[in-house]
Amino acid sequence: MRLDTLTIVGVGLIGGSVGLAAKARGVARRVVGVGRDERTLARAVAVGAIDSFTTNLGDGASAADLVVVCTPVDRVAGDVLTAATAAPSRSVVTDAGSTKGNIVRALNGMMPPKAAPFVGSHPLAGSEKKGAAHARADLFADRIVVVTPTADTDQEAASVVDLFWQSLGARVIRMDPFEHDEALAATSHLPHAAASGLAAATPVGWLGLTAGGFRDTTRIAGADPDLWAAIFEANRDAVLAATDRFADRMAEFRRVLAAGDRAGLVRWLAEGKKVRDALGS
Amino acid sequence: MRLDTLTIVGVGLIGGSVGLAAKARGVARRVVGVGRDERTLARAVAVGAIDSFTTNLGDGASAADLVVVCTPVDRVAGDVLTAATAAPSRSVVTDAGSTKGNIVRALNGMMPPKAAPFVGSHPLAGSEKKGAAHARADLFADRIVVVTPTADTDQEAASVVDLFWQSLGARVIRMDPFEHDEALAATSHLPHAAASGLAAATPVGWLGLTAGGFRDTTRIAGADPDLWAAIFEANRDAVLAATDRFADRMAEFRRVLAAGDRAGLVRWLAEGKKVRDALGS
Repeated sequence: MRLDTLTIVGVGLIGGSVGLAAKARGVARRVVGVGRDERTLARAVAVGAIDSFTTNLGDGASAADLVVVCTPVDRVAGDVLTAATAAPSRSVVTDAGSTKGNIVRALNGMMPPKAAPFVGSHPLAGSEKKGAAHARADLFADRIVVVTPTADTDQEAASVVDLFWQSLGARVIRMDPFEHDEALAATSHLPHAAASGLAAATPVGWLGLTAGGFRDTTRIAGADPDLWAAIFEANRDAVLAATDRFADRMAEFRRVLAAGDRAGLVRWLAEGKKVRDALGS
Repeated sequence: MRLDTLTIVGVGLIGGSVGLAAKARGVARRVVGVGRDERTLARAVAVGAIDSFTTNLGDGASAADLVVVCTPVDRVAGDVLTAATAAPSRSVVTDAGSTKGNIVRALNGMMPPKAAPFVGSHPLAGSEKKGAAHARADLFADRIVVVTPTADTDQEAASVVDLFWQSLGARVIRMDPFEHDEALAATSHLPHAAASGLAAATPVGWLGLTAGGFRDTTRIAGADPDLWAAIFEANRDAVLAATDRFADRMAEFRRVLAAGDRAGLVRWLAEGKKVRDALGS
């Protein structure tokens, strides 16, 4: 894939990595960054993630062959609408948000007739760190990107989006946006809440008594609270359901432990090990 | 420190690493392994973790200058008693178990008058892997070892145990055994249960939609269910208390999310981030 102009809206860790990867792999001749803070955008130029920038989304999208919206999930739909309206009709708009159903719902019936087509994406890659300073050209290499067309999606645009992520080294799978959200509530959003809950439930005075287990289990608790609050709210119902399943599971742990039911405790642990072993190290 | 004979009871990941470290650092002239399975012990010889072995604990301890009991926590007290009774009075017995109060309780009033003195230890190092095949000479380098003497503990023996772990590269801190257990319930045992609960609550069909967050958060769910069931039971009260604190914390997450309380959600996440950031990456 060889684009003339790639526009990235929101040049943080993900957006910056899209830019670095696109440039490293020759996927775009020119990468334009769009953001609200000129100093942040200037730093993204300095690290080589984008070639130029603007704080005006309409301007940034007007010459784009592809627009990738990498803003927080509660801003994606609005940015997609603005970008799709300003971009040439022949271009394609996608995003990189952790939730997909909220975007489909928000855009339903809102797109003007000549708007560029939109296809949602979610690269399963990231970091608890933030900002283009932590961006990496290989962030998407061998990672999964979920592309989430609906029945209304332009098929050609969906193929362009597939090809784009594949050109950055990712493996693309396609899913229904709402099914995506239900799965990610379990595989990403709930683990985030649990990591944060574990960290917060630990008195700071005991942190010297932690080892690798605590470190790994709570790592993602260091992520940005605003970004994650937006993700939880955008996927509220599925996250609540996953949280309830987890609470039931932990209540069962409490029950077998309190009862002194050794065999039940071993079985409870073995069920978790079976799933984790299926994932591999 | 230069011991003539070091006896290791239970030559798995931890015991094997004690042997490798002691030999690599010249801490012991001779390392004797004690276990129940001759094939396991022969493999520990093959990887260089021990020089010789016996399946008779009394024999293995009889010439020891130091005995380190590395068996599962529900077997530590019994093995300590046997080893301390068989070992020369001038020697010292310690262990490497994840729980300490249960050993103190079990040994209370049980030690014969001429028994070698016992001092509990807990190296905060390990792995979800098991067996001497995964042992590492550097497992304890720069790691914390908690040494847990009581009011009745022989002070000279406690100093020997401190020095031993320091000679393997560890940093030693001393704590009351029951305080240790309360802290470790939060910093190690609960995170283990939560990791297992998260893994078990995830449908296997969605594992392809996991990324680094899930992988890190659930890593320790792959550990041995029998070993961990024993740890949870040995520290039941403190683990139940930590589990309840965590459940309260997760219920608060559910409450602010269900209420659409964005500010409360951000605050909830920020409290976890604050603790995790205090730990460092």
